[in-house]
Amino acid sequence: MNKPSILIKHAQLVTMNAKDEVFTGDVWIEAGRIQAVAPELNAAADRVIDAGGKVLLPGFIQTHVHLCQTLFRGRADDMELLDWLKKRIWPLEGAHDEESVFYSALLGIGELIRSGTTTILDMETVRHADAAFRAMAESGIRAISGKVMMDRGEDVPESLAEDTDRSMQESVDLLERWHGYDGGRLGYAFCPRFVLSCTERLLLGVRDLSEQYGVLVHTHASENRSEIELVERELGMRNVVYFDHIGLATPRLVLAHGVWLDEQEKRIVRDRGVKLTHCPGSNLKLASGIAEVPDLLTRSIAMGIGADGAPCNNTLDMYQEMKLTALLHKVKHGPRAMDAKTALRMATIGGAEVLGLEREIGSIEAGKKADLQLVDLNEFHAYPAYDADVYSRLVYAAGRADVDTVLIDGNIVMENKTVLTVDKAVVLAETDRCIRRLLERIGG
Amino acid sequence: MNKPSILIKHAQLVTMNAKDEVFTGDVWIEAGRIQAVAPELNAAADRVIDAGGKVLLPGFIQTHVHLCQTLFRGRADDMELLDWLKKRIWPLEGAHDEESVFYSALLGIGELIRSGTTTILDMETVRHADAAFRAMAESGIRAISGKVMMDRGEDVPESLAEDTDRSMQESVDLLERWHGYDGGRLGYAFCPRFVLSCTERLLLGVRDLSEQYGVLVHTHASENRSEIELVERELGMRNVVYFDHIGLATPRLVLAHGVWLDEQEKRIVRDRGVKLTHCPGSNLKLASGIAEVPDLLTRSIAMGIGADGAPCNNTLDMYQEMKLTALLHKVKHGPRAMDAKTALRMATIGGAEVLGLEREIGSIEAGKKADLQLVDLNEFHAYPAYDADVYSRLVYAAGRADVDTVLIDGNIVMENKTVLTVDKAVVLAETDRCIRRLLERIGG
Repeated sequence: MNKPSILIKHAQLVTMNAKDEVFTGDVWIEAGRIQAVAPELNAAADRVIDAGGKVLLPGFIQTHVHLCQTLFRGRADDMELLDWLKKRIWPLEGAHDEESVFYSALLGIGELIRSGTTTILDMETVRHADAAFRAMAESGIRAISGKVMMDRGEDVPESLAEDTDRSMQESVDLLERWHGYDGGRLGYAFCPRFVLSCTERLLLGVRDLSEQYGVLVHTHASENRSEIELVERELGMRNVVYFDHIGLATPRLVLAHGVWLDEQEKRIVRDRGVKLTHCPGSNLKLASGIAEVPDLLTRSIAMGIGADGAPCNNTLDMYQEMKLTALLHKVKHGPRAMDAKTALRMATIGGAEVLGLEREIGSIEAGKKADLQLVDLNEFHAYPAYDADVYSRLVYAAGRADVDTVLIDGNIVMENKTVLTVDKAVVLAETDRCIRRLLERIGG
Repeated sequence: MNKPSILIKHAQLVTMNAKDEVFTGDVWIEAGRIQAVAPELNAAADRVIDAGGKVLLPGFIQTHVHLCQTLFRGRADDMELLDWLKKRIWPLEGAHDEESVFYSALLGIGELIRSGTTTILDMETVRHADAAFRAMAESGIRAISGKVMMDRGEDVPESLAEDTDRSMQESVDLLERWHGYDGGRLGYAFCPRFVLSCTERLLLGVRDLSEQYGVLVHTHASENRSEIELVERELGMRNVVYFDHIGLATPRLVLAHGVWLDEQEKRIVRDRGVKLTHCPGSNLKLASGIAEVPDLLTRSIAMGIGADGAPCNNTLDMYQEMKLTALLHKVKHGPRAMDAKTALRMATIGGAEVLGLEREIGSIEAGKKADLQLVDLNEFHAYPAYDADVYSRLVYAAGRADVDTVLIDGNIVMENKTVLTVDKAVVLAETDRCIRRLLERIGG
């Protein structure tokens, strides 16, 4: 199907380009890419969008989410990580079937698009990852995802327990089916859950496969104090030191959380070009801690932001995560520890750098994929507008409901605040049906 | 004007009554008050609202806001309290005229009603408080407010400097004009800014006036470490000890912030029945700190929540403040430090207790004023709904844009997500005009 040519007129453009340019102008899109950005463009287009009075910025990039967990929103409140995993999330993930994974993903994608997120780095559960990829394919979101890999660990339900070789083979099979789908809109990442869930043989295999296929490795590390104590007790070294020891610490490694990284680990992350994802909402809700983001950014470490899964947040809303990112560090490091522009960078071009996609997405520039959000700040909560700092408006005042229109890969996936590619009524009804049946399976 | 009789049918009622009852049912409203609450009510009514599939809860009560500062949203980012006051907020407040105070208040009230807040404890600036009261009167919000009092202090612009006797006389004049307006919908509170802005003679006068008229005293205390150091240096004792020393520590005293209260101060607060307001967003943004809310609640101290002013938050959104309240204490005190229901209590009936209005507002019960919000959680971000904890949905997942209908004092002030009593187009345009002219006055 040919993509429409689109001309967006008169928007306040928050480009997030290297010069941080902000100006009122037009964006011309053809064949899924931004062809031109200028104060005034005139071109024939299939669609002309009058964006006068609205703000156009890059779609958000969330570098750590779990779509398979969206179905479990609100079912694991007020618990710490290891309890949360063992008592709630693993039994729930283990009870998933293909249909429940599919609707869980669509529910999450609906929420993400509605709130301006256009790209995700996702981690699915052990089984039924094809169903999640189908949801990503049909909804139009840009995603890198993979099945979680976990071939050891305490209290893992039988339905999640994996054989090492089979885990790798299934991952490769998924990669071959989905990596590069729709001109590269979908991609694959190997997703070992975390050190405590993986044998060394699995991690070495992942290292080799990631190199062989040139794809990311997406895992968790240094999220919670009990986790890092267990890792140190088992392996005699800390998470990131271990990853480096086995050759997994490369620029293709994306670590979620990194709350408790010590000096040695921070140096490895920087020296090896490892990427990090800050998950402030999840880290608060699971009582994990607050990552040292200002320090990590000073070291020129690439950092994105992710909402993590719905049951530890409980939303997938980058506006909330950005505001938390900007606010949380001030108490410890002073009011200038993090400004609004820095938080918005992490949510856009910073996330693109984490995924190695900074030449494709994350800013409004000619040649980049047309992943964009048009935001209407003509609301009580974002006024006055006169001579206002647009970064402050977007980070400290705006919210998910202000997003009006979303483009991904040059396709209009949301318009007039309605997601076009995910049928809300169907998905709400189906997710209620799926969670009811899933809970019956566990209860029975 | 007679108030309409209203029958709300088939809502999920989150009553916040003493039994924390939640059930599906009807609410019958007449003469501004809830007449009956039951699973099924049949009565003739001027208006019947079918609330099937929606959640009805008490309107939020914010016990610390500054409507006069809404106009300054985004103009004082990333600063600490004393700089923020002296370099930005005082010069801006000092440049207000009657019109700018009026539209600043309407802008804030529009935002508050849109996001489910029905009652505020507000602090205006030194002059033009009548204009703010006019905005409160015509918008239908329930409010207790007063002009700020400040008869000393460094770096105070001339336009804010006050003579002690005149400050008290003007306060009493305002009280006499507005206290009890519209059947008690508006009330007056004496508002000495904070210890560093007030002579002892002023505070003693406020103590006597508050007793004479039986109204609240609304002030700031123990917000910021530099503030408490200055107070101790000047007076040889801490904020609350000083208030107790001069007889101001009574059940009519409402202190905003209380971040740095020490053991002696916490005991005075509890023993004297002083009330507190938690302002988590403001305390993060001004790098002030995180109040010890779980400890204060354990001591049976009445605590509400407030967004504070727009330039230190930058929104007036109780949904954000509630979620922050529930999240912020977990890192230090564990994941069960604060649950969703406790945060929602602080935002509703807890706020009513702070204002001494717990028999009038804060819960859905027969006899109380009809201050209510109807919330539509049929959104991606709040699903699944099946067998879900409604407190978790409201606190961890819902947001300001989910509020559909708001009643205050039995009047429908918002419907279908549109505020009926504040003309958005007019207010947005007028606030832009007012801030432009105000900035010109300062620049010139």
